Amino acid sequence: MAARIHVITLGVSDLDRALSFYRDGLGLPSQGIIGTQYAGDDQRPAGAVAMFKLGDGLILSLYPRPDLAKDAAVHASHTAGSGFSIGQIVDSREDVDRILQLARRAGATVPGPAHERPWGIYSGYFADPDGHLWEIIYSLPNNAPA
Amino acid sequence: MAARIHVITLGVSDLDRALSFYRDGLGLPSQGIIGTQYAGDDQRPAGAVAMFKLGDGLILSLYPRPDLAKDAAVHASHTAGSGFSIGQIVDSREDVDRILQLARRAGATVPGPAHERPWGIYSGYFADPDGHLWEIIYSLPNNAPA
Repeated sequence: MAARIHVITLGVSDLDRALSFYRDGLGLPSQGIIGTQYAGDDQRPAGAVAMFKLGDGLILSLYPRPDLAKDAAVHASHTAGSGFSIGQIVDSREDVDRILQLARRAGATVPGPAHERPWGIYSGYFADPDGHLWEIIYSLPNNAPA
Repeated sequence: MAARIHVITLGVSDLDRALSFYRDGLGLPSQGIIGTQYAGDDQRPAGAVAMFKLGDGLILSLYPRPDLAKDAAVHASHTAGSGFSIGQIVDSREDVDRILQLARRAGATVPGPAHERPWGIYSGYFADPDGHLWEIIYSLPNNAPA
């Protein structure tokens, strides 16, 4: 298996709300919701999705949790919760604090203030409106990144 | 906020098992578990983690769910579940089927056979030992990718 990831799809409860958070709140570029011509039903997932082109060809995708469950043929409860985090590395402590503040204003929850870790980073988390965790990370000088 | 992701951290129940699945089962390159010198306690997360360098500088990281919860200052229940999927695009239907078979042999669950979607892909999912979903995707000729 190639060591390569192309898409990260976040299961969301409200596609409009999630799009607004990432596009209008965080300023990530998106064409908005596409794929609405693919109507789902009880068995088949609908196709409506919002996508964001990130650097290096990576795509962040927002997809309703029930459709993700149907598409993967797993029980709806499988796509509840959020046992992962997405990390973004920035250039300064100020950038960490600024982005957490931006996210809070956009509707995110910031569970605690950013702080240093013994493994050589200053970082803080926000949880998007669906609870998905983002860690904003600054690698301290003279320390290896975590 | 920059449109850029550097790290995807999966919360896992058993770090050794998860490392074995991704390194020995799927063949992704890793130096193994690092950061064991950072012992945690009831409040602070431990530093032990397994990392995989993916293409384009992206890092896939495996981190115990309780440590992820402590690091993010969220309740442990927050890091249960898996409301997202990771997508990998491959070059053929055969690659989709081959990787699903590889993952199943490595200990993954394959909830259903790969199949075509109306939005122009042939894809199938596997769930890793912690339930994290991967979608292996082939874009059908003459169709726009999803």
